[in-house]
Amino acid sequence: MAMACSFCPEPHVHEPSKIHTMIQCKALQYEEVARDGKARAGLLHTTHGTIETPIFMPVGTLGTVKSMTPEDLEDEVGAQIILGNTYHLYLRPGLEVVELHGGLHNMMNWHKPILTDSGGYQVFSLKDLRKIREEGVEFQDHIRGSRHLFTPEKVVQIQETLGSDIMMAFDECPPHDAPISYMQKSMARTTRWAQRCLDARTREDCAMFGILQGGINEKMRREHADQMLDLDFEGWAIGGLSVGEESSAMYDMAELSTELMLDHKAKYMMGVGKPDDLIECIGRGVDMFDCVLPSRNARNGQALTSIGAVTIRNATYEKDLSPLDPNCSCYTCKNYTRAYLRHLYKSKEMLYGRLCTLHNLHFYLKLVKGARQAIIDGRFEDYKKEYYAKQANTETK
Amino acid sequence: MAMACSFCPEPHVHEPSKIHTMIQCKALQYEEVARDGKARAGLLHTTHGTIETPIFMPVGTLGTVKSMTPEDLEDEVGAQIILGNTYHLYLRPGLEVVELHGGLHNMMNWHKPILTDSGGYQVFSLKDLRKIREEGVEFQDHIRGSRHLFTPEKVVQIQETLGSDIMMAFDECPPHDAPISYMQKSMARTTRWAQRCLDARTREDCAMFGILQGGINEKMRREHADQMLDLDFEGWAIGGLSVGEESSAMYDMAELSTELMLDHKAKYMMGVGKPDDLIECIGRGVDMFDCVLPSRNARNGQALTSIGAVTIRNATYEKDLSPLDPNCSCYTCKNYTRAYLRHLYKSKEMLYGRLCTLHNLHFYLKLVKGARQAIIDGRFEDYKKEYYAKQANTETK
Repeated sequence: MAMACSFCPEPHVHEPSKIHTMIQCKALQYEEVARDGKARAGLLHTTHGTIETPIFMPVGTLGTVKSMTPEDLEDEVGAQIILGNTYHLYLRPGLEVVELHGGLHNMMNWHKPILTDSGGYQVFSLKDLRKIREEGVEFQDHIRGSRHLFTPEKVVQIQETLGSDIMMAFDECPPHDAPISYMQKSMARTTRWAQRCLDARTREDCAMFGILQGGINEKMRREHADQMLDLDFEGWAIGGLSVGEESSAMYDMAELSTELMLDHKAKYMMGVGKPDDLIECIGRGVDMFDCVLPSRNARNGQALTSIGAVTIRNATYEKDLSPLDPNCSCYTCKNYTRAYLRHLYKSKEMLYGRLCTLHNLHFYLKLVKGARQAIIDGRFEDYKKEYYAKQANTETK
Repeated sequence: MAMACSFCPEPHVHEPSKIHTMIQCKALQYEEVARDGKARAGLLHTTHGTIETPIFMPVGTLGTVKSMTPEDLEDEVGAQIILGNTYHLYLRPGLEVVELHGGLHNMMNWHKPILTDSGGYQVFSLKDLRKIREEGVEFQDHIRGSRHLFTPEKVVQIQETLGSDIMMAFDECPPHDAPISYMQKSMARTTRWAQRCLDARTREDCAMFGILQGGINEKMRREHADQMLDLDFEGWAIGGLSVGEESSAMYDMAELSTELMLDHKAKYMMGVGKPDDLIECIGRGVDMFDCVLPSRNARNGQALTSIGAVTIRNATYEKDLSPLDPNCSCYTCKNYTRAYLRHLYKSKEMLYGRLCTLHNLHFYLKLVKGARQAIIDGRFEDYKKEYYAKQANTETK
């Protein structure tokens, strides 16, 4: 498909793969501050401010981190960057409404950095409702069943309209047990789409990360990295993990990927994970994480704490006057007992979801903040050991 | 039922109706500050602090005003006192759990005044599941279907365990169209129960209000007031209104009741009401109100504003960048557009309920605060006119 070139002095057309990549986001810079083994501490400068890495990004699917205000996130949770979902925001409230507000930051009243995914993961998850072509993915949405086409160019346009600080390239995330032949075909297409994403950029204040695929196969991971790493993304993500594979395979792939990636750019592991996964992958060189787990588990009644998981509906907490986490200083732990939180949970009170979400996100942010300091202090291995020693008390292990 | 008497010098037993009424709450004092026509501004001193009247009390049925933290209520809404429901708290989390926390204030982390109802209204609403006897009401609860007996003595004991600043006497609220003969029988029993409630008190820090019934019949209202007003309650409530009768009848009964009541005690109108009802009844001498309307309507998609109701799901708000209420300075109106709130509502996002509840409660508290100042300034009638003039713009009128 030939495209008009808006960069050259004279109007003409290019093959997408040959279009000049002239738009770059100077605002986004990764700066390594310290390294301890493979773990690293850094600063990620973005259009909406600087993030201390390693960092966890709470997920704000529909322009809200469920139950939280921006003040909760900033002041109580310690969030520095949140994630928005392109697919969901494109459907609701739709781009026109976001654009009227001047972007997602204004609409949701969050003025720190936002990373948006490409929508690829959601669209590919639609299974029977989508059709993959070289041009892009045609799909029927899960709300109204209307037909849409997501192309690399379209998802860049959507993310630029959202005003994302860090956009993600459009990729396919194949099942981790897909046949090698399919994996290779898919990776090659993801590489072509990555170039088209770069070519489609028009905003210098919106950075873009490329995504490395390859499942849990070392050879495939290396192959895709070879194809991709020359492309001029401002950061890199490890895609295709935490989709049902063994933890050990995920950790191996994380370690391999961070080694393949360039050290002067941020390394983001998508959709990960459990607290243990964060600790393990920070130790393997990952800088950024996102996952719905802390907020979703909170709503489903599971608090994540320094001493392990607390399943709040359990009768054992009925008269328990201690806080969710004895080592936590969050608003919830400072002010409420497990007995009260259990009562709210069992009574389906809205306040429960809010208080437990706040705690779980605070726990994640404290975990990565502690890891960062430990890396700076050159004692990350001790931090990891201390973390596991405390977790050993858990009810669920 | 004979009861041990803890007041007389020598241990012995009394019939409940003959027990000395020696427990009084000295902490509760009503102080009239200004009067404008029949409307009055006052101060109500309680064990947990002083309330400026007229006041609206947000309803915290199960030990939480739905979606709100105590900080939201105090700092953002301007709440000075909240209401808890005896029936609901008795069932969930149960008295033992509340007692372990040292009372409802501690459990829910709200350290300002709390008024609790007697549970009578909920128990009588169970219709087929309850049986009224002189001793009390036997009922099957709506959760587990277990059998319980609420007597005047029991509901005082429950409310004292909750640690309520203002307890309500156990009464029957008959349908407003009940036959006169039933009304009279019911009122006489409510009077006997009122005396038993007074006799059952053991805590001097928990005040108690009596409740006047009589439906929408002037003669009945006078009859019940005659029976009741000699009893030594620290304040008085108007019961049995806002249960389906015409507004004009409700206003007439409010006016009659405040005239019958003693002016040196607070006058509380139970379960009322719409913003118009508050304005009308303040003008008729009422000091205190409670109602689920602002919080329930918020969750159901209706914002109450200075210019009338805003039904947020309406398509007209899809691209509306204005705040819910152009004359409001609440957190929600300062930071979010109608378009964003509509998006949250339609997406069933938890944040919607929270933001709209905050606004609606703020609107109610601002309304009564404005009324109080107008009374002090001797311009309540103008305040009322200005209120109605603005409301005339509403979408729903």
